[in-house]
Amino acid sequence: MNAGKPEEHPAVPALADVLISEVGPRDGLQSVAATMPTADKLRWIDALAAAGLREIEVGSFVPAHLLPQLADTAEVVRHARGHGGLTVMALVPNQRGAQAALRAGVHKLTVPLSASEAHSLANVRKTREAMVDEVAAIARLRAEAAPRVRLEVGLSTAFGCTLQGAVAEDDVIRLAEACVRAGVDEVGLSDTTGMANPAQVRRLFIRLRAAIGGHAGAAHMHNTRGLGLANCLAAFDVGVRTFDASLGGLGGCPYAPGASGNVVTEDLVFMFEAMGVSTGIDITRLLAARQPLAAGLPGEPIYGMTAEAGLPKGFVQGNPRV
Amino acid sequence: MNAGKPEEHPAVPALADVLISEVGPRDGLQSVAATMPTADKLRWIDALAAAGLREIEVGSFVPAHLLPQLADTAEVVRHARGHGGLTVMALVPNQRGAQAALRAGVHKLTVPLSASEAHSLANVRKTREAMVDEVAAIARLRAEAAPRVRLEVGLSTAFGCTLQGAVAEDDVIRLAEACVRAGVDEVGLSDTTGMANPAQVRRLFIRLRAAIGGHAGAAHMHNTRGLGLANCLAAFDVGVRTFDASLGGLGGCPYAPGASGNVVTEDLVFMFEAMGVSTGIDITRLLAARQPLAAGLPGEPIYGMTAEAGLPKGFVQGNPRV
Repeated sequence: MNAGKPEEHPAVPALADVLISEVGPRDGLQSVAATMPTADKLRWIDALAAAGLREIEVGSFVPAHLLPQLADTAEVVRHARGHGGLTVMALVPNQRGAQAALRAGVHKLTVPLSASEAHSLANVRKTREAMVDEVAAIARLRAEAAPRVRLEVGLSTAFGCTLQGAVAEDDVIRLAEACVRAGVDEVGLSDTTGMANPAQVRRLFIRLRAAIGGHAGAAHMHNTRGLGLANCLAAFDVGVRTFDASLGGLGGCPYAPGASGNVVTEDLVFMFEAMGVSTGIDITRLLAARQPLAAGLPGEPIYGMTAEAGLPKGFVQGNPRV
Repeated sequence: MNAGKPEEHPAVPALADVLISEVGPRDGLQSVAATMPTADKLRWIDALAAAGLREIEVGSFVPAHLLPQLADTAEVVRHARGHGGLTVMALVPNQRGAQAALRAGVHKLTVPLSASEAHSLANVRKTREAMVDEVAAIARLRAEAAPRVRLEVGLSTAFGCTLQGAVAEDDVIRLAEACVRAGVDEVGLSDTTGMANPAQVRRLFIRLRAAIGGHAGAAHMHNTRGLGLANCLAAFDVGVRTFDASLGGLGGCPYAPGASGNVVTEDLVFMFEAMGVSTGIDITRLLAARQPLAAGLPGEPIYGMTAEAGLPKGFVQGNPRV
């Protein structure tokens, strides 16, 4: 294993119909006050890999004083790279983060870019156009230093913004096109605020694919108002095949107790597998991966309806039409 | 108002795309240990009607010693009939219940019939065939005594059963056809156990419509494994236009704390309205109807993600593409 030369990884694992991209170790852990000890993170990631997850966002390369929960991301990346076939992804907000991520040996970089100008200014103190320039600089850096590393942009607040309200669909598409011109491989759409509805999801992902073709990326849906799985279904219906989710629904933007942010990985995998859509994930092992998560974050609420109810009587994975 | 001669009511209210059928006062209240005082029930139903609900299952005509929570159903029916345009529905398990319901003046009877033989025997100590005979007797009674009253059968465990596991789709369709031959107006499908998935929902409702045409009725989905709204979306996609739901997710078959059974009316209405699918319901008033529900059932958990998160910034009902 050579940390400086990551291998290329396919977007969807062999024999699976969809790719479930686990974001809990980044999106989840940055949202909780407690810091999960590194050893617990590694055990959790090992359990996720053992369940068959093929892409995990393992951390974020941001200054440690901003997100002390993720200060060990380089170490986590090096460990996660030991899992054959796993795409190790990290969030980077800027060139400095991208440099650190490439040094650590990630397979994939993901850069958040707000579709809402108000959210962009509030979140990173940059206009959206300035963030497109930053993305272009990251793409150049990647092309020079590590051309086989994949580069993704997640367009946050793509379905609405808690600061400015509605976000124009034309803005979302224009930014996606600008990112592809800047050299990005995939552009996904994120419902950061849980405002999306299935009709909007279908409309916007259809437009996205029409605009940027095979560069159209993941659906990152939130369950803030209970529509997370319905929105994933809507995205699947129009051809989306990569879905972000978080084990136990950890993280996202919860507005209220019980109103978890991220779509729960276990529930999403159950939905697809029950439909006969293969995820490549063993759902029993996936449910078992909640244990190391809970152990590493004592007292933190872990969500998930499938885990609470258990699998249905007679449920056999890969055999949905019993 | 003449309790002996209910008027005919349209299935879908004017100017609405879908009919949301509120089942909380029956399905919800029969599932909780406490008995809501009659005066509180009436206040709750008034609030639901004020929000624009056009069909409410207000109770059940079963012996009072079996369901003391619903012993006042006849009184509730008489009160609910005072709301112009509201279809007042009650559950009846047999001819005796149907007679009592017709005497009280309901507009619509709903009869549960298990698609699973094991569930039917466990629940009503009758085979499915014996229940079809009972339905036929109820249909004859209705034709003689109150031909304008509508008669619905809800096929419970249509998507799977906690006792026998899988339920054959052919059995579901065969029973639906038998019910229509027996004189039933509408046959709906109920995911009593929260085992349905969107692919199965689409498949089975398509088959149902192919078999019984315009007699195909409501989708009654549960949120046991988090798929309630996704399953409603799937049903909508294949032409279903009537959806059962329960305010605050009260009732259903909860298997675990937090795993509410019935789809939450507020979340379902939010989903449709956000999509631009008109429900005829004022979502702000609907959220306000949680107050009398909570007041009548002190200490009972009331669910709902939309209520917890609030409506999105800038959300304007009837104007989804702002």
